Amino acid sequence: MLDPKPVHRHIDVHEEAYLADLIDLVRQPSISARDEGVTECAEILARQMENMGVKASILPTDGQPVVFGALPSKDPDAFTLLCYGHYDVQPPEPLERWDSPPFEPVVRDGRLFGRGTGDNKGQLLTHVMAASAWKAVHGDVPVNLKFIFDGEEESGSPNLETFVAKNRDLLAADLVLISDGTMHPSGAPLISLGNRGVIGITLKAQGADRDNHSGNKGGVAPNPAWMLIHVLAHTVDPSGKVLVEGFYDDVRAVTETDREIIERLPFDAESFGATMGLPRVTMPKEEYYRRIMLEPYFNINGLISGYTGPGSKTIIPSEAEARIDIRTVVDQRFDDLVEKLRAHIHALDPRVEMHVRGIGGMRPSRTPADHPAIPVIAGAVERARDREPFINLSSGGSLPNAVWPNTLGIPHVGIPYANADENNHSPNENLVLDCFYAGIHTSAEVFAALATARDRGTL
Amino acid sequence: MLDPKPVHRHIDVHEEAYLADLIDLVRQPSISARDEGVTECAEILARQMENMGVKASILPTDGQPVVFGALPSKDPDAFTLLCYGHYDVQPPEPLERWDSPPFEPVVRDGRLFGRGTGDNKGQLLTHVMAASAWKAVHGDVPVNLKFIFDGEEESGSPNLETFVAKNRDLLAADLVLISDGTMHPSGAPLISLGNRGVIGITLKAQGADRDNHSGNKGGVAPNPAWMLIHVLAHTVDPSGKVLVEGFYDDVRAVTETDREIIERLPFDAESFGATMGLPRVTMPKEEYYRRIMLEPYFNINGLISGYTGPGSKTIIPSEAEARIDIRTVVDQRFDDLVEKLRAHIHALDPRVEMHVRGIGGMRPSRTPADHPAIPVIAGAVERARDREPFINLSSGGSLPNAVWPNTLGIPHVGIPYANADENNHSPNENLVLDCFYAGIHTSAEVFAALATARDRGTL
Repeated sequence: MLDPKPVHRHIDVHEEAYLADLIDLVRQPSISARDEGVTECAEILARQMENMGVKASILPTDGQPVVFGALPSKDPDAFTLLCYGHYDVQPPEPLERWDSPPFEPVVRDGRLFGRGTGDNKGQLLTHVMAASAWKAVHGDVPVNLKFIFDGEEESGSPNLETFVAKNRDLLAADLVLISDGTMHPSGAPLISLGNRGVIGITLKAQGADRDNHSGNKGGVAPNPAWMLIHVLAHTVDPSGKVLVEGFYDDVRAVTETDREIIERLPFDAESFGATMGLPRVTMPKEEYYRRIMLEPYFNINGLISGYTGPGSKTIIPSEAEARIDIRTVVDQRFDDLVEKLRAHIHALDPRVEMHVRGIGGMRPSRTPADHPAIPVIAGAVERARDREPFINLSSGGSLPNAVWPNTLGIPHVGIPYANADENNHSPNENLVLDCFYAGIHTSAEVFAALATARDRGTL
Repeated sequence: MLDPKPVHRHIDVHEEAYLADLIDLVRQPSISARDEGVTECAEILARQMENMGVKASILPTDGQPVVFGALPSKDPDAFTLLCYGHYDVQPPEPLERWDSPPFEPVVRDGRLFGRGTGDNKGQLLTHVMAASAWKAVHGDVPVNLKFIFDGEEESGSPNLETFVAKNRDLLAADLVLISDGTMHPSGAPLISLGNRGVIGITLKAQGADRDNHSGNKGGVAPNPAWMLIHVLAHTVDPSGKVLVEGFYDDVRAVTETDREIIERLPFDAESFGATMGLPRVTMPKEEYYRRIMLEPYFNINGLISGYTGPGSKTIIPSEAEARIDIRTVVDQRFDDLVEKLRAHIHALDPRVEMHVRGIGGMRPSRTPADHPAIPVIAGAVERARDREPFINLSSGGSLPNAVWPNTLGIPHVGIPYANADENNHSPNENLVLDCFYAGIHTSAEVFAALATARDRGTL
């Protein structure tokens, strides 16, 4: 097995070059939401990959192109790792709240500031740079490396599934590695095994075709606000339990391994409460993590009816609307849940119409915690960071990860490298340079660990 | 008994002078909502009353002044009628939707257009003009007449109750007559015996001190939209029944007389539906009228939580608010209902706060349908209009009428004189001139009928 130590030394002495590449990549806007500079950014990224010894190509989709790269190992039996990332970025607005322009990356206080530094240009580059370091030092990489960099993740990756389905052979691998998001606020590394899915729903209740005077018509004109309230109250109970028949049918049972992993996670009722604007979290640790990681949540994100401006208007509203996002967990199925919910709503009150926002939404996905790659990766992360990582069974939010098991048939593991205060999607997005460099070291170590495990027959 | 016939002839030949007075009064803006021209209007009105032989005075309140007038009968045993009206008007905006300026009254197609023509300057003047006609023809009036013209009805008459309580002797009377609102759309006259009250409530549910990401925190952060929905769903059932304990305790039972009056009212499911923007009313006639006239209604007029702009935001809202107006019926009491509702809400979820908008709101009031003045007035209206009036047990909306029985101890009867399409509170407010003149005739006939009934000992 090749020795990772000289690779780490190589990384240490090339920090300046890595930073220069990252700055070049961040300087190029790549805002998929308004098709601004995305193709130009793909070209810069592909050129950087080529310069680092990775064969790169820009592959079309129905939307923004995918940047694909490959750096095979000389070992014919090598493990194959597919690294996923995205080179598009969120719009930078509001511009006036940036301390320096979003696309003029600048280092201040040990951080690189700029849109896309942490989300996700800095993180996707770590894998390429780690591969390049291995190649430079040893003339080979310990695992076959493939890279798929998405150009429209910030727009919901609408073409990713189709692209993957059409390129199964090209993308064939043993595991997908994703570095996106942030480490634990304590600075501890994290390993993320999945994410919840999301289904966007709008419920609309219709009363009369106009607002009516609540005095003159109160009691005889239908009030859609009341219709909506009664439908919603019979859809989710006060504890958050969804009352739709069969809603939980496909939810996986919590395993003993899941429980052990949760038991090892940190929990502080006050500081966890503070992150969401509460004096403290009032539920116990096990329930807290179980709810975010392993249970669906039926959220109302918007509710509107009648007059809500200054003063008041004594009207019976003509319409009422609830905007909902349902956070689903593996193995809940989009079509199944939509159908069950539609039937439930219709049976309660046919005057309430249900509309699904987006097609399919993001699917839930979760690599089982007892997958043999997890301890291998956890060990590598601990060696690279000198600190045991926490295992996150699933992030509460939604990512386009389901495509890997569902379409490609392989598991995925996330190792977020960004600092907890990276301000992704916000002004003054930044990446702590030490996190960036540590990410390159970590990827290099993960490559070695996967190769060793393959040699030993454990993977 | 004095003969009303020459009085009607007198009215017929003085139409031009009545119209000139009304035009003068409408030309003076009197917008209580922004204290624009109200005092000036009070002065014009008092001068007009003096010119018509009524002793008028402008009496201060903590808000806009009351214009009081008196024209006693020479008969020491005469019935005393107190006529209530208001000389303030709604703001005229939006100005661009008026075909002629709101304070430049003009006659078109047999209607006088201008803010306040029907609501309520034209209607309050009818009583003064009828009294003046009696005086001019016979040198006397058949009943003692008192006039109280409110300067802030359009602002909720906040000082009326205090004013009445301080001036009980001045205002002492046997009955209050109010001409406000419109006749039946068919053109049939109406007699209105009351109105519902209104209580304005805001419910606010508080979650965290900020919006949270529904993926990252969905299931562990509290969602105030759900709190509010569950509280509301347990406060009013889908049929509209209020679930607050004791809410209906003081509601009067429906009497046989009430039922007979409802039975005589017109009902057309399609055209009644059309007035509120529905294909048809689906409930039976008796239920329709009972609900508007004799039952309370718990209305939601505004509902807001989270993000309701274009697109969507996957947040857990930090706040949710419902704006409510409860339409109450006689003898429901404001303080009692507020206290019961507050206890009910608090028991359901102490995180939902209840705020009462305004102090006291408008109280419900209803003169019993078997009051002996009703057939007397109905007979007078039928003689004046050559058409039997419909009896409206109570308007669904709210008016400051409760002060008469509650503070002065006397009943009230409404005879609206305006055309159904008067556009009150809207652009192009107007009063059909024939309605205006018919109103003067009707008041004159009502005065005579009350005097006759007093002579016969029935009143």
